[in-house]
Amino acid sequence: MLLHLQTWPEVEAYLKKSTAIIIPIGSTEQHGPNGLVGTDAICGEAVGRKLGERTGTLVAPTIAVGMAQHHLGFPGSMTLRPSTLIAVVKDNVESLARHGFTHFYFVNGHGGNVAPFSAAFSEIYAEASLMRASNRPAVRCRLRNWYETAGVKAISRELYGDQEGSHATPSEVSLTWAVYPETQKPMKMSPEVAPRGEFTDANDYRRNFPDGRIGSNPGLSSIEAGKRLWEAAVSDLAGDLAAFVKMPA
Amino acid sequence: MLLHLQTWPEVEAYLKKSTAIIIPIGSTEQHGPNGLVGTDAICGEAVGRKLGERTGTLVAPTIAVGMAQHHLGFPGSMTLRPSTLIAVVKDNVESLARHGFTHFYFVNGHGGNVAPFSAAFSEIYAEASLMRASNRPAVRCRLRNWYETAGVKAISRELYGDQEGSHATPSEVSLTWAVYPETQKPMKMSPEVAPRGEFTDANDYRRNFPDGRIGSNPGLSSIEAGKRLWEAAVSDLAGDLAAFVKMPA
Amino acid sequence: MLLHLQTWPEVEAYLKKSTAIIIPIGSTEQHGPNGLVGTDAICGEAVGRKLGERTGTLVAPTIAVGMAQHHLGFPGSMTLRPSTLIAVVKDNVESLARHGFTHFYFVNGHGGNVAPFSAAFSEIYAEASLMRASNRPAVRCRLRNWYETAGVKAISRELYGDQEGSHATPSEVSLTWAVYPETQKPMKMSPEVAPRGEFTDANDYRRNFPDGRIGSNPGLSSIEAGKRLWEAAVSDLAGDLAAFVKMPA
Amino acid sequence: MLLHLQTWPEVEAYLKKSTAIIIPIGSTEQHGPNGLVGTDAICGEAVGRKLGERTGTLVAPTIAVGMAQHHLGFPGSMTLRPSTLIAVVKDNVESLARHGFTHFYFVNGHGGNVAPFSAAFSEIYAEASLMRASNRPAVRCRLRNWYETAGVKAISRELYGDQEGSHATPSEVSLTWAVYPETQKPMKMSPEVAPRGEFTDANDYRRNFPDGRIGSNPGLSSIEAGKRLWEAAVSDLAGDLAAFVKMPA
Amino acid sequence: MLLHLQTWPEVEAYLKKSTAIIIPIGSTEQHGPNGLVGTDAICGEAVGRKLGERTGTLVAPTIAVGMAQHHLGFPGSMTLRPSTLIAVVKDNVESLARHGFTHFYFVNGHGGNVAPFSAAFSEIYAEASLMRASNRPAVRCRLRNWYETAGVKAISRELYGDQEGSHATPSEVSLTWAVYPETQKPMKMSPEVAPRGEFTDANDYRRNFPDGRIGSNPGLSSIEAGKRLWEAAVSDLAGDLAAFVKMPA
Amino acid sequence: MLLHLQTWPEVEAYLKKSTAIIIPIGSTEQHGPNGLVGTDAICGEAVGRKLGERTGTLVAPTIAVGMAQHHLGFPGSMTLRPSTLIAVVKDNVESLARHGFTHFYFVNGHGGNVAPFSAAFSEIYAEASLMRASNRPAVRCRLRNWYETAGVKAISRELYGDQEGSHATPSEVSLTWAVYPETQKPMKMSPEVAPRGEFTDANDYRRNFPDGRIGSNPGLSSIEAGKRLWEAAVSDLAGDLAAFVKMPA
Repeated sequence: MLLHLQTWPEVEAYLKKSTAIIIPIGSTEQHGPNGLVGTDAICGEAVGRKLGERTGTLVAPTIAVGMAQHHLGFPGSMTLRPSTLIAVVKDNVESLARHGFTHFYFVNGHGGNVAPFSAAFSEIYAEASLMRASNRPAVRCRLRNWYETAGVKAISRELYGDQEGSHATPSEVSLTWAVYPETQKPMKMSPEVAPRGEFTDANDYRRNFPDGRIGSNPGLSSIEAGKRLWEAAVSDLAGDLAAFVKMPA
Repeated sequence: MLLHLQTWPEVEAYLKKSTAIIIPIGSTEQHGPNGLVGTDAICGEAVGRKLGERTGTLVAPTIAVGMAQHHLGFPGSMTLRPSTLIAVVKDNVESLARHGFTHFYFVNGHGGNVAPFSAAFSEIYAEASLMRASNRPAVRCRLRNWYETAGVKAISRELYGDQEGSHATPSEVSLTWAVYPETQKPMKMSPEVAPRGEFTDANDYRRNFPDGRIGSNPGLSSIEAGKRLWEAAVSDLAGDLAAFVKMPA
Repeated sequence: MLLHLQTWPEVEAYLKKSTAIIIPIGSTEQHGPNGLVGTDAICGEAVGRKLGERTGTLVAPTIAVGMAQHHLGFPGSMTLRPSTLIAVVKDNVESLARHGFTHFYFVNGHGGNVAPFSAAFSEIYAEASLMRASNRPAVRCRLRNWYETAGVKAISRELYGDQEGSHATPSEVSLTWAVYPETQKPMKMSPEVAPRGEFTDANDYRRNFPDGRIGSNPGLSSIEAGKRLWEAAVSDLAGDLAAFVKMPA
Repeated sequence: MLLHLQTWPEVEAYLKKSTAIIIPIGSTEQHGPNGLVGTDAICGEAVGRKLGERTGTLVAPTIAVGMAQHHLGFPGSMTLRPSTLIAVVKDNVESLARHGFTHFYFVNGHGGNVAPFSAAFSEIYAEASLMRASNRPAVRCRLRNWYETAGVKAISRELYGDQEGSHATPSEVSLTWAVYPETQKPMKMSPEVAPRGEFTDANDYRRNFPDGRIGSNPGLSSIEAGKRLWEAAVSDLAGDLAAFVKMPA
Repeated sequence: MLLHLQTWPEVEAYLKKSTAIIIPIGSTEQHGPNGLVGTDAICGEAVGRKLGERTGTLVAPTIAVGMAQHHLGFPGSMTLRPSTLIAVVKDNVESLARHGFTHFYFVNGHGGNVAPFSAAFSEIYAEASLMRASNRPAVRCRLRNWYETAGVKAISRELYGDQEGSHATPSEVSLTWAVYPETQKPMKMSPEVAPRGEFTDANDYRRNFPDGRIGSNPGLSSIEAGKRLWEAAVSDLAGDLAAFVKMPA
Repeated sequence: MLLHLQTWPEVEAYLKKSTAIIIPIGSTEQHGPNGLVGTDAICGEAVGRKLGERTGTLVAPTIAVGMAQHHLGFPGSMTLRPSTLIAVVKDNVESLARHGFTHFYFVNGHGGNVAPFSAAFSEIYAEASLMRASNRPAVRCRLRNWYETAGVKAISRELYGDQEGSHATPSEVSLTWAVYPETQKPMKMSPEVAPRGEFTDANDYRRNFPDGRIGSNPGLSSIEAGKRLWEAAVSDLAGDLAAFVKMPA
C-alpha cells in the first residue's frame, strides 16, 4: 500500500488495523562509472515498497535526497545538510504522528544517512525526554539498511567476495538494474577494484576515489543478482518489521 | 532525462550543453473522498518529467512532501514547516549549483507551496545580495504551477466551469487517473460541489471543509480529461522553460 | 488607537470588546530617483493607522524592515532574510495571542513581503496543526496589500494607466507625499517609463533596472492623488476588516 | 536625516561623507498605570532622531519591539525572543554594511535589550573572527542607553531621587509626555513608590510587581522634566557619537 | 558535591532536600603572556566547586568554552557563537529541570559570557512567558561573576590598584596559580601595564592589545593573593546563594 | 599538554610542530546503581589526556555533556539536543581551525555521541563541499570510542564475558574507579546482569531498564581492571592517532 495512492478515508481505515508506516530513504549521488545517481533512493524505495506489499504495511513517499556531502565533487550529487535532514525527519514523523501513526520503519539505501537519521530520531525523542509530560504521543523509529541484512550479505559474499567494496557496490548496482533493466551499463572497470579508504569533504573524496567507487567492482553487476538480493532483503526485513511493530511505542 | 537514472559522467556531459534543471514539487495531503493523498506530487512529477523529455532537460528527484499544514486534520496528510522547506530548497539548489547548474525550474502541483518556495528563493538570493562579493555562483529559480497555464485553464473552464474549485479539483484528480488508471474512483460527491472559503490551521480547515474538498466536484474527473490537461500543461510550460533558460543566471 | 500610545490597563479594557489588532508592515528599500527609501513602510503605516482610527481597532507598531533582498544593490535598502521574518512574525503574534488577541490583520505596503509573511502564517498555524492539542490559543492572520484594493486600482488605472508599473509606482509615491508633503520631489524621469521584467538577486535587479523603478513613471505623482488613494484604501479595507473579525479564530 | 525620508541617490551622497548610522531601539511593553506601552521605543526614537539632526547623522527605522518577555503578563506587551533579535540585528547590520556603512550606533530605550543586543553584536563579529579572511567588511557597533548618560542621571537624581526606580520611571514617562503631550496622564500612584526586586518570567514579574512598576513613582512625571532630559541625553550622546565615529571599523 | 561524582540514586536523594544546582562557567581564551588559556574556566570551576562544598550544593560540569570571539586572534582561543551558547544553556537547564531542579546558579569567570548567558536565561523564560500555561516547570537562573564580589574587589584594589585592568588581570592569574601552582610563570610585562580600550572582532582586538592583556599587569600575580581571592569569592557568594535559594522558582 | 594549562605563546609554538588536537568527549548521565553520573566524561577525559601526554599532543577541554536524551528518566542525567551538539562541535572546530589546527581527534566515552558527532562532522565538511571554493581551511575529524579498541575489548571479554553489557558496564565503572578511587561503590547488583534491549525516549528507557543498566553487571568492577583498561585504550589509540595525523587535512 503506497500512501500516495490512497485516499484519506483509506488511510483512516488503515489506521484502525495498524499504526505502522514504512519510509524508504535513499540518496541522490554519484555511484561510479556505471551506477545511477539515484542508486540509493531506487534501492531503498524498491525494497521498502515490496516490503510494504508483502506485509500489508503502508509506505510513505521516499526521501530521495539524503546526506551525501562527500559526493559533491561529482556532477549530479545532491545533499541535505545534517541539520536540514533532522528538520525534515522531525516534520515527517510529527505529521504522521498527528494521525495516530506510532511505528516508523525507515528502509535505507545509503550509509551516509545512518548517523544523521539516528541523530534525527534522538532529536524527536528528546522533545518528550526533556519534559515530564508532552503534548505529543510517543513514537518509535527504526532504520534498517537493506544491504546489511543477513541474507543480502550472504549473497554478496558469495557473488562478489572482497570486490563488493563499500560504495558503488555490485550489489546495489545489480539491484537498480533489476528495477530498471533499461539502465544496464555493463562495463569493465579500471582498475577492476577501486581503492579503499576514508574521506572527509568532497574535495578529499574526489582526490582519493577518482571515479567515485570505493573498494568495489561494479563490473560484476547483473540483473539476476539484483533479483536475488531484492528478494533476500525484503524477506529478512519482513521478519524484522514484524518484531518491530510488536514493541510498544 | 531523469537525474536519478543517469551516471555522473552523463551528468557531466549534460552540463556541457545545458545548465538548466527541472525540479518537480508536490505535496502529500488529502484530496477529498476520491483523490489520492499523493495527487500534487503525482501531477508535479508527471508534468515535470514529460516536460524534461520533450525539451531534453534534466529532471531532479521530486520533492514529494511540501507545505500542507492545513490538511493535517485528515489522515495521511504530511507537511514540512515553511522554515524546513526553506532549508531543503537551499540545500537542493546549492548542491546542484556546485556542479554548475544555474537555472532551476520548479514544476509545482500544490498551491500551498507557492509562498514558502518563493520565500526560499529569496533566502537563496539574499546570500548573494547581502555581500558585495559571494563565493557562490549566481542562480535563477522559477516556480510554475502546472494547473495555471493558459492551456490548462482553458480546458478546465470548458469541462468543469465553476465546479473546478480550488482543492481536490476534477482537473488534478483527472491527471492522476491518467497517470495511474488503476486508481480511478468514480464517485458521486455529496454535496456535489464543496463549500468555498478560507482556512487557517488544520482544525479550522476540517471544520469548514468536512470531506476535504474546496469548491470542487471531482466526481467529474476522467482519464480522458487528464490526458488533455497533461499535454496542455507540458506544451505551455515548454515554451515558458525555453524563455527562462535564455535569461542570464 | 495606537498600541504604543496606550497604557496596559487601556489595552486590557480594549480586549473586553475586541480581540483584533492591525499590524502595518512595509519595507525600507530604494524607490527610484524620487521615491523615499521608507515608501512601503510609510504607506502601510498611513493606511493601517487611519484604518485603525476609522474602525476603532488597535494598531501595533509597524514592521518597517521587510523582505527586500533584491533592492540591496541600491544604497539605503535593508532586508530581513525570509527565515528571520518568519521568526519575527511568530514572536509578534505569540506575544499578542498571550493577551487574548485572536485576529491579526496585516496592512502591507510591499509586494516582497507577501510570500514570506504567508510562509510565516503557515509556520504559526503549523504549530497547532502538528499536534492534536496545543497549549496555544487559535489565531487567524490576514495580509492585505493597500495598493490592490478595488478602489485603489480603479484610481491608479484612471490616473496612470500603464505607467503605474510595479515598483516605485506613482501611486505609492503620491501617497508618501500626501503623508509627508515636505518630501515632494517632482522630477521628469528618464526614460519616462521604466523597463519591466523579472529579477533574482540584488545584482541582477540593479543590472535590469538601473534607476530602481520597474515599469513605472513616478514623475506623475501628486499629493492630490495620494489623498484619494489613501482614502480609497482605508475605505475598502474597513469593509474587509469588518468581515474578517467576524470569522472564528 | 531620517533614512526612510531619503531617496537612494541621497543615501549614496551621504555615504561619501559619512559611513555612520544611528539605529533607535526600544520596546513595546507595559509601563505601569500611566506609562505608554510604547515608552521605550518612543524615547529611543525621540533621542536618536534628535541626535541625528544635531550631528547630521543618518537615522535608520526604529526597532520598536525588543526583548521584553518578562512583561508579557500585562496586556499589550510584546517581545522578540533573544534568538530572533540576534537574527534581526544581524540582518539590519549586514544590509547596511553592503552599502558601505561601517559604524552602527544604537540608541536604546530599554534595559532588557542590552544583553541580547550585545550578544547580537558578538554574533556579527564572530563571523569575521572565526575565519582568517572574511567576505564581509569590518563593522563597529555601539549601544547606548539614553537614560544612563551623565546629564540624564544628574537631572533624574535632582528631580526624583530614589523615586526614579528602574521600570516605568518618572524620567522615561516625562520624556514620552514631552514627545506626545496629549498622552499625559497625571495620576497618584498607590503605593507611591513601587516595590523593588528581581524577576524571571512573566508570571514571576506580575506576581512581584502588580501594577508593572519597579521602584518608581511616575506620578512625578512632567512635560517640563521630559524636555530637559531629552536635551541632556542628546547633548551627551552627541559627544559620545563624535568619538565613536573616529574609531576604526 | 560534584554531580559527575554522584550516582543517580544519590542525586535523587539530594533532590529531596534541595532543588538548587551550581553551574561553573568559564572560557577558553588567551590570557596574556603568562596567563593560562583556561584561566576563566579554572577560576569559575575553582570558585563554583568550593562554593558547592561549603554550602552542600550540587555542582554540575563546568561549561569551559564560552563566548570569546574577540580573542580568536590569539592561538588556542575558542568560542561558541552567542546563538550556540543560548541553545547549550537551554538544554542544560531543561535537562535538569526535568528532574526537579528549580534554581540554577551560574558561577562565572568571564566577562564575555555575561550578555549571552543573560540572553539565554531570557530565551528560557520566554518559553513560559509566551504561553498562558506551559508544560515546563518554572525555573530561576542567576549568574554571578566571582571577580566582582565585594570581598574580591576590596582585595584586588588593595593589591593591584589600577594595575588590575580588565583582561588577564593579576587577580585571575593569581587564582589560577593557587589552583595549579605548577603553572606559575612570574614574568615582567612590557609595557608593565597594558593599554585600555574597546574592541569589536578578533582582528580589531589583536590590533589594539598586541599581547592580549587589557589594562592589567599580571606580573603582580602570586599564589598567596590567589588564595585570599578564592576564599573571598566563595565566602561572598555563599551568602548570595543562600538568599537566592529562598526565592520562589 | 592540556590546552587550558598553556599560554597563548605556548600554543603558537606548538602549532609550529603539530596541527593536531585531541578533544575528549563524554556524557553526564546515569550509570546504574553504583556508576557515576560523569562516567563517560571521566573516561573520555582520562584516556584522552593520557593519550595527549604519551604522544605529545595538545588536549582541548572535555565536552562533558553529550547526547543522552534517553537517560533523562534518571535524576542527574543531562543532554544536548543533537542540533545543539552540531552547533557546538562546529564552533569548537572552527575556532581552532582559525589558528591553523587541521586534525581533530575526538576521544569518546559515550555511545550516544557517535551519531550526532558524525552528523556534526558532516555538517562541517558540507560547508566546504557545497562551494567550489571556501574561505575556511580544510579540516579532518575522527571520533574513536575508547571502549572499542582491540586491547580494551580483549580485556573486557577476558574479565567480564557476557556480563560486560552495553550501559553501565564493569569496564567503564572500573576505569572511573581507577581515576577516582574514592568513588568506589562495590555492590551486588539485583538482578546480577541487567536486561538487554532497545529504547526510544527517556520514558521507554526507564520502563525497560529500571535501575539504568543495560545487559551489564558492574558489580564486577575493580580499580585493578580499570588501570589495565586505561592503559590498553591509550596504547591502542596512540597508534591510531599516529596514523591519523599523517593523513592530509
